[in-house]
Amino acid sequence: MSYNLLKGKRGIIFGALDENSIAWKTAETVHAEGGKFVLTNAPIAMRMGNIKDLAEKTGSEIIPADATSVEDLENLVEKSVEILGGKIDFVLHSIGMSVNVRKGNHYTDMNYDFTTKGWDVSAVSFHKVMQVLYKKDAMNEWGSIVALSYMAAQRVFPDYNDMADNKAYLESIARSFGYFFGKDKKVRVNTISQSPTPTTAGQGVKGFGGFIAFAEKTSPLGNATAQECANYTVSLFSDLTRKVTLQNLYHDGGFSNMGVSQEVMEAFDRNEEEK
Amino acid sequence: MSYNLLKGKRGIIFGALDENSIAWKTAETVHAEGGKFVLTNAPIAMRMGNIKDLAEKTGSEIIPADATSVEDLENLVEKSVEILGGKIDFVLHSIGMSVNVRKGNHYTDMNYDFTTKGWDVSAVSFHKVMQVLYKKDAMNEWGSIVALSYMAAQRVFPDYNDMADNKAYLESIARSFGYFFGKDKKVRVNTISQSPTPTTAGQGVKGFGGFIAFAEKTSPLGNATAQECANYTVSLFSDLTRKVTLQNLYHDGGFSNMGVSQEVMEAFDRNEEEK
Amino acid sequence: MSYNLLKGKRGIIFGALDENSIAWKTAETVHAEGGKFVLTNAPIAMRMGNIKDLAEKTGSEIIPADATSVEDLENLVEKSVEILGGKIDFVLHSIGMSVNVRKGNHYTDMNYDFTTKGWDVSAVSFHKVMQVLYKKDAMNEWGSIVALSYMAAQRVFPDYNDMADNKAYLESIARSFGYFFGKDKKVRVNTISQSPTPTTAGQGVKGFGGFIAFAEKTSPLGNATAQECANYTVSLFSDLTRKVTLQNLYHDGGFSNMGVSQEVMEAFDRNEEEK
Amino acid sequence: MSYNLLKGKRGIIFGALDENSIAWKTAETVHAEGGKFVLTNAPIAMRMGNIKDLAEKTGSEIIPADATSVEDLENLVEKSVEILGGKIDFVLHSIGMSVNVRKGNHYTDMNYDFTTKGWDVSAVSFHKVMQVLYKKDAMNEWGSIVALSYMAAQRVFPDYNDMADNKAYLESIARSFGYFFGKDKKVRVNTISQSPTPTTAGQGVKGFGGFIAFAEKTSPLGNATAQECANYTVSLFSDLTRKVTLQNLYHDGGFSNMGVSQEVMEAFDRNEEEK
Repeated sequence: MSYNLLKGKRGIIFGALDENSIAWKTAETVHAEGGKFVLTNAPIAMRMGNIKDLAEKTGSEIIPADATSVEDLENLVEKSVEILGGKIDFVLHSIGMSVNVRKGNHYTDMNYDFTTKGWDVSAVSFHKVMQVLYKKDAMNEWGSIVALSYMAAQRVFPDYNDMADNKAYLESIARSFGYFFGKDKKVRVNTISQSPTPTTAGQGVKGFGGFIAFAEKTSPLGNATAQECANYTVSLFSDLTRKVTLQNLYHDGGFSNMGVSQEVMEAFDRNEEEK
Repeated sequence: MSYNLLKGKRGIIFGALDENSIAWKTAETVHAEGGKFVLTNAPIAMRMGNIKDLAEKTGSEIIPADATSVEDLENLVEKSVEILGGKIDFVLHSIGMSVNVRKGNHYTDMNYDFTTKGWDVSAVSFHKVMQVLYKKDAMNEWGSIVALSYMAAQRVFPDYNDMADNKAYLESIARSFGYFFGKDKKVRVNTISQSPTPTTAGQGVKGFGGFIAFAEKTSPLGNATAQECANYTVSLFSDLTRKVTLQNLYHDGGFSNMGVSQEVMEAFDRNEEEK
Repeated sequence: MSYNLLKGKRGIIFGALDENSIAWKTAETVHAEGGKFVLTNAPIAMRMGNIKDLAEKTGSEIIPADATSVEDLENLVEKSVEILGGKIDFVLHSIGMSVNVRKGNHYTDMNYDFTTKGWDVSAVSFHKVMQVLYKKDAMNEWGSIVALSYMAAQRVFPDYNDMADNKAYLESIARSFGYFFGKDKKVRVNTISQSPTPTTAGQGVKGFGGFIAFAEKTSPLGNATAQECANYTVSLFSDLTRKVTLQNLYHDGGFSNMGVSQEVMEAFDRNEEEK
Repeated sequence: MSYNLLKGKRGIIFGALDENSIAWKTAETVHAEGGKFVLTNAPIAMRMGNIKDLAEKTGSEIIPADATSVEDLENLVEKSVEILGGKIDFVLHSIGMSVNVRKGNHYTDMNYDFTTKGWDVSAVSFHKVMQVLYKKDAMNEWGSIVALSYMAAQRVFPDYNDMADNKAYLESIARSFGYFFGKDKKVRVNTISQSPTPTTAGQGVKGFGGFIAFAEKTSPLGNATAQECANYTVSLFSDLTRKVTLQNLYHDGGFSNMGVSQEVMEAFDRNEEEK
């Protein structure tokens, strides 16, 4: 698909690690739609992934930045405007990490230093990005800022741990900052609440494979893939969605509004019978 | 338990059929808490149940009324005020019925006459009850009106059929009428969104037994029983909850805010493995 | 704007009355994006509007249909598939009318025959449209069905009367039918909850002008216009949003997630001082 | 009122500062209902208030604790169980503070050290309290934990600043921890989303007086007072609400489900005319 939906638009894309990343697919799709952008990721993440291939493929520059460092973000925004030749039209925030999850700490046995670190990386970074963009007046009118979220912000998924709380905070930032960014600069801010997606990062979560199968069977249209999320993100960056703001948008094949699907009930019933 | 929470209060209770009914348990519990009330049900429902035993046990009178008939409701309200010796403090609406479900019509193959009948009985009746109470100025200040609902109003449960849409309409009535009843008469209006409950009526729904087990395993505290719903309703009739209004209140052991529980995931995983 | 987003797609558009209608703007925009469609409206509405101009402009045929008549809808769907030369990819349901509003009946003094009529036209018609499409297997895979709704389905706007309850029912139908349409036919179903819009129909609601100003000042991006709604609808018809389903999508400049804006607080404070 | 609703129950109440505090009113009401409890507050808050009067009046002991210190909380829980002579049945968390608000930093110009401090005090403290209670197995079955929240967690109130995000995080903790506390210990966890309340703490927020008037005119039953919140909290501590968990419960006279009230529209219209 290619419609030239983002022709002439400039952006910053956070969080492309490898070809499984939603941010990676988004970069490719934005490129296909005519948008220009700077890629950025944390220095440590960049060593693990192969973001350079993506940069080459899409004719983009990479500016490393620790998204918890206001200084790094200031540098990123300044350089991006310079490189792209004008103010920014779109931003994708696709950043999340829980130290408690990584270290295997149960939600009822948290290490609060880890909690603070994960919150800073996964949620506060979104505020920092926007505060830097806002103070530098670096966004064009009718620009669009999107962060990726997950439904654990609203409902309990036991293995999602403190990422649930981080996503709730992230979505609140979207509303709180979205108000000022809208009123003062005509910029919209939304989060996409995406299906569980088999990215390299997602695979760290315990029992993730089983859960993806469960979500697939619950959702009437099946799970949304990384590529489909990229497509949806492009629609939110485009001029077709200018008055959508402060929203958390479920992109999940319908999962979020399911109580239980027929297929899950059948699996559950079969298991009960076999006991 | 008995705290005299409803001492001196007068009410009308719709929908007690037999000892499995939530309305039946509520009547018993209200009685234990010192409240007086009139029992009512549709003439046809009264022939099937044993509401007379309940009336005797609780020292109540029965006034039959078809809740879709404004005339019947006018008679009910007038007589109730007379019998109870004053204006009404609490009302329980526990009425629901889908002809499409009874006749086995799938949601994608509805008979619209049946749809209309079910909507009138299950949802519009709530408006009619309130309109009669409002126009006759039959509610005391700080009175409380409660209707029973179900989470299918928000999320899909495939076998729930058009009752889902009826419950959505019912909950909307609670908000819409609750505004005027609050502002003009200081009366609060809420719905309780109750766990699936093995009442005589509920048992008509296809696959209900399996679904109750699923809800039990999803809810961290297990399903709420009819007696627990009666207790909760009493708290909403009491003076402890005077400023709660226009709300849909989940009484479901936590089901409504679960994505998936550990136990359901385990059942699902086991079933996948066995395939 | 024109991106060829709907090239090769076929649809049915309900509810275009005159150039203020959202459906009218949508038809124009869909046409510009390369989509083909049949226009339809109730015979009586067609006499009042000038839908023929629109048909001419967009090279479309008109098939009159009373959306409460299953027979009319069957004819509409059959003829549309024939005329357009294939199954349907997109449907817009933009139909709503409250007889109680028209007749000036207050929400606490409803005429229930009027209530039933308004519910049938505004809400059940959406089920009927989908049931006919579903039974005739007239939708292509990855088709998209959109109905227009309003936030009164969730929150109280006193003058919106029984349209609030109708919209709640409509949105519930989107979820309930969306499940089966998704699972069985890979078709998505969503509602757009649009800003108050100065259409010819909307202008019937009491105090509508003041309310539009209030919404404008509450929404950080201002109200969404009919043309912007058309753009957004096109994004939901396009292949960019294939996994969005069962959702109610706020298109309102942020109104839905506002508690109160600074500007409304200032207006309120000024009024308090002057008293 | 006194019903002996909490006879024999033991608890811990956080956050009573002076007679305007919701926690203060709750302590008095719990006492009247037969409950026993330990009072606690941060050492610094205790110097400013007059919690000793409350302790005397209710026959309670005071154990100072910084709610961000796990060590302090461990001491508090151990001592409380000892003093009260058994495990805990109820806990009220009424703690909140934003350094950014105090220092007058706008939401778009945050100091992130202040943000972290406010988050720790207002939100993470709730996790710490529960983690200590959980690990020490200090709660009785069917115990009830309540934290006070505010609707800024869902909707934008411009002056509420980072407290909005903190409340969103707090409510997420209630769900996340509530799942494990429910499943493992049969303890329920909820938040009350209370009307703006003229407490000593609340009065720090800019324009708070005007906002209270706005909320009063929006809510069909008017704002909920501190005493009414205490009554509602007692109902949630009682055995009448055992199956309510993972919920955020609006206690606000109906504000949360209002779009706009007639009175606010009239004030807005008058102001528009006068311009």
